[in-house]
Amino acid sequence: MNFAVIGGDMRQVKLAELLAEDGHNVAAFAVDKEYMGAGAVTRKGSLELAGTDCVILPLPVMGKEGLLSTPLSSESLTIQDTLFNLPPEAIICAGKIDPATRELARHRKLELIDYLEREEFAVANAVSAAEGALMLIMSETAVTVHNLKILVTGFGRIGKILCHRLWGLGAEVSAYARECADLAWIKAYGYHPVDPGVLDDSLHEFDVVVNTVPARIFGESRLKKLNPGVWCLDLASKPGGIDFIKAAELGVPVLWALGLPGEIAPVTSGAVIRDTIYNILKEEGAM
Amino acid sequence: MNFAVIGGDMRQVKLAELLAEDGHNVAAFAVDKEYMGAGAVTRKGSLELAGTDCVILPLPVMGKEGLLSTPLSSESLTIQDTLFNLPPEAIICAGKIDPATRELARHRKLELIDYLEREEFAVANAVSAAEGALMLIMSETAVTVHNLKILVTGFGRIGKILCHRLWGLGAEVSAYARECADLAWIKAYGYHPVDPGVLDDSLHEFDVVVNTVPARIFGESRLKKLNPGVWCLDLASKPGGIDFIKAAELGVPVLWALGLPGEIAPVTSGAVIRDTIYNILKEEGAM
Amino acid sequence: MNFAVIGGDMRQVKLAELLAEDGHNVAAFAVDKEYMGAGAVTRKGSLELAGTDCVILPLPVMGKEGLLSTPLSSESLTIQDTLFNLPPEAIICAGKIDPATRELARHRKLELIDYLEREEFAVANAVSAAEGALMLIMSETAVTVHNLKILVTGFGRIGKILCHRLWGLGAEVSAYARECADLAWIKAYGYHPVDPGVLDDSLHEFDVVVNTVPARIFGESRLKKLNPGVWCLDLASKPGGIDFIKAAELGVPVLWALGLPGEIAPVTSGAVIRDTIYNILKEEGAM
Amino acid sequence: MNFAVIGGDMRQVKLAELLAEDGHNVAAFAVDKEYMGAGAVTRKGSLELAGTDCVILPLPVMGKEGLLSTPLSSESLTIQDTLFNLPPEAIICAGKIDPATRELARHRKLELIDYLEREEFAVANAVSAAEGALMLIMSETAVTVHNLKILVTGFGRIGKILCHRLWGLGAEVSAYARECADLAWIKAYGYHPVDPGVLDDSLHEFDVVVNTVPARIFGESRLKKLNPGVWCLDLASKPGGIDFIKAAELGVPVLWALGLPGEIAPVTSGAVIRDTIYNILKEEGAM
Repeated sequence: MNFAVIGGDMRQVKLAELLAEDGHNVAAFAVDKEYMGAGAVTRKGSLELAGTDCVILPLPVMGKEGLLSTPLSSESLTIQDTLFNLPPEAIICAGKIDPATRELARHRKLELIDYLEREEFAVANAVSAAEGALMLIMSETAVTVHNLKILVTGFGRIGKILCHRLWGLGAEVSAYARECADLAWIKAYGYHPVDPGVLDDSLHEFDVVVNTVPARIFGESRLKKLNPGVWCLDLASKPGGIDFIKAAELGVPVLWALGLPGEIAPVTSGAVIRDTIYNILKEEGAM
Repeated sequence: MNFAVIGGDMRQVKLAELLAEDGHNVAAFAVDKEYMGAGAVTRKGSLELAGTDCVILPLPVMGKEGLLSTPLSSESLTIQDTLFNLPPEAIICAGKIDPATRELARHRKLELIDYLEREEFAVANAVSAAEGALMLIMSETAVTVHNLKILVTGFGRIGKILCHRLWGLGAEVSAYARECADLAWIKAYGYHPVDPGVLDDSLHEFDVVVNTVPARIFGESRLKKLNPGVWCLDLASKPGGIDFIKAAELGVPVLWALGLPGEIAPVTSGAVIRDTIYNILKEEGAM
Repeated sequence: MNFAVIGGDMRQVKLAELLAEDGHNVAAFAVDKEYMGAGAVTRKGSLELAGTDCVILPLPVMGKEGLLSTPLSSESLTIQDTLFNLPPEAIICAGKIDPATRELARHRKLELIDYLEREEFAVANAVSAAEGALMLIMSETAVTVHNLKILVTGFGRIGKILCHRLWGLGAEVSAYARECADLAWIKAYGYHPVDPGVLDDSLHEFDVVVNTVPARIFGESRLKKLNPGVWCLDLASKPGGIDFIKAAELGVPVLWALGLPGEIAPVTSGAVIRDTIYNILKEEGAM
Repeated sequence: MNFAVIGGDMRQVKLAELLAEDGHNVAAFAVDKEYMGAGAVTRKGSLELAGTDCVILPLPVMGKEGLLSTPLSSESLTIQDTLFNLPPEAIICAGKIDPATRELARHRKLELIDYLEREEFAVANAVSAAEGALMLIMSETAVTVHNLKILVTGFGRIGKILCHRLWGLGAEVSAYARECADLAWIKAYGYHPVDPGVLDDSLHEFDVVVNTVPARIFGESRLKKLNPGVWCLDLASKPGGIDFIKAAELGVPVLWALGLPGEIAPVTSGAVIRDTIYNILKEEGAM
């Protein structure tokens, strides 16, 4: 098949290389030559996309206002121009599509498929995010994860995988959730369940707290109940789950880490995008 | 609180003991004296339930046609009579409520809460079912689970927990699912994902196959593709996922195991029912 | 190569089949026809062993006084006659060689190599023994291994593997050892270390106790300190680590289980013997 | 008890704090004020040690030629002067005692106990070293540990624990050892055993190689057989197990990481020293 990969960071670079390794024709645009590996991948200045079966736009698709995200390119491309050049018959995938881009595409009668919204992408991304969290815990605290008393708040994708990995490293894992069903899963996997009725009274027990819930779980009152030597990591997207200003006032060390998957493991992330694109193409009957 | 436990098997007996250990008044009915442990639990011949806050009926609630399930009692009770004696102000819990019992209750203007349908009950039950499956694999095959090449079909509650435990014992775990998202989870936990496109071609690789999907996954064609030395376990509720008649004709050994949780771990199952009842009572504002 | 397998139980039968699968000529003796699988394995009445490169005797080599262990044979063979018929140039392996057999061999100027004494055999056997222990815990107690509070006394081969597997199933694993180094390993793997100073005071905490030390660890005083609902499993060879008579007097349920590997997984055990024999042959320069 | 902690890095600082937390009198010397936490710990300029029960010298005891290792102190102390001031009746512990220091002590008729040589210290240290290795793999490679094909050469303390943690993170773990017994343990824990006969032919399969053996395992011929995208980590003490010069010539990326425990987890390392000192004191009858 003929693929075009336009813009993006090291994940898109690796994606292009992986597609080429699988035997596809791949044209990469808006990535400077020095970043692209040797091999079957070609790249050109202007967007010549005739005959392209599938176009892959970056994650997130928009960088600065109105521009395609192209951190590895010395030139810049507007989203409008980019969409204007896309062949309407191609399958077009993009990550984290914002309303403005969505609107521009509708105008051009293009259907954009958001690969960030695919569940399998989100799960695989959570694997990288959880490892990124482990690495931060290892590098930012002066103790081993082994034997660490740790609380993970939230038992969604990242919470589930992070608990699993912490357990594999020998930590004493507690997980907080509100729903009975989540608490049952927490118990089933061998972690200590912390329900809303006991959360406040158990906060002083933990060496490390990792939040994954995008809601203000840790306000002043709970921050005050933490162990004096605690270290906190917030993985939740905006607005985060910890009151950062109060934490700073109280001297509670907090690190807010977003975008871990792309940072810790761009090659794995590129492979995850590839697998997701393949699933999309299969469902669209194009592969 | 005042509890009444009526009928049931060893799970209900243990439930009654556990409730009494927690300091509640517990009256047990329709369980013969020799099964009931010493302690605070009392039992009486006729259903005197005045002042009872919560009545717990068995799982399943119905045994033989129209009768309450009372396998540990020398007497029998009809469901109709039982319901007639229940105090309308009590919270009434029962397991696996069939339409006929539901209808009788509606007539009597009683609301029955089915604890089998609670998600946290189902998850905790799956823990026991998965252990029961492990025990059967250990006792029925001539090899160790360690190093075993095993396929689990279905990645619902039992599938998830069974894979986790098999991995913990050092098996080579493959799991089959149809959805991309399930396959992403399978990979995230470190098992080999088997998707519909590769299932048939990989069937010959496995020493043991455990099915958890209540749909006919293993018909004649797939049974023929299995390894000659394979052993199969079906944990799916009726109609099961394996064509048992064809399997017998082809000489493929299959064990269809239902009701494992109550068998392998009645004390744990009793505790699971207790926890679920407590959750119901909390949500009803009674605890 | 030319192998002769003489006597033994299902492990030796499987061993003979596996050797034949690897392309060797295998003659099996003193195993009745109905036990031996189809294939390249042949068997004959009298011990004609000319040209045999390697003779494999059973584990244990001696059954009843002076006789070779031949539980699957309707005939019997004395060890003396067997040894008399062995070709002196062959490599001769046997399991658990007793002093009398050793003496007879010396007389005949035969060197017997004991495969039971090989470390790699002992480790692989411990894998099977640990699984056998798990199966017994599952079948003999009314609770799940998940969440079980369990004490393993001794951190030798079986102790190490049993703790690892229990942890993988979600048990709360404590392990008792006397040496600082063993206790450090126990901690490193994430189990609770129990040292001699705290053993007595912690005995009441456990639901299950598994002993692996062949020394009287559990005499009357410690048995009395156990939890009233405890269940005990002794895996230690004679004389065992629990005072069985006192336990019976005190009503402490104890199961003494020996020979688990051969029982739970004869096929795996046959493969383990084969791998050990291959290692012996390599070290002897014969393979 | 009365302790004196003299010199050392953050591990000794934490050690002093932990001893004080346990209720002991602790005098710390040759550590500048700003490093020492608040609390019961006192510190003085000159070595006044009358009444001290136990003196703890750093790990390693010698820094620059003839001087005590005092990286957190603006002053310096010679080992000779330090030993001269020690009370002969105290128990004196030091880490990694070199022959020159040993000789000076003999002259002064002091018995020095090396806590680095204690097995329980080495095991606990290996826990930290293994985590340090994980952190480096996470930060230095562009892929996740999950699904990583990794080879660990050597199955001593660090090898054992590192394999266990890698497995817990979902890596595909292979381990190389020469002895049959080690290979049996590798298999028993569920990793892929790599023996000398297959090492060379399997080298191209791995994404990451971690060496723990202090012997030249990776010379030119094996370095050439590695996967072009491999990343190598050498944890072995001098001279290391990889030919670093050849690796540089061949473009194989290698990181040689020593002293990980103290770097990644000084608090945990301080606690490990404390536990080891307590064990020594118990064996000496002083505690």
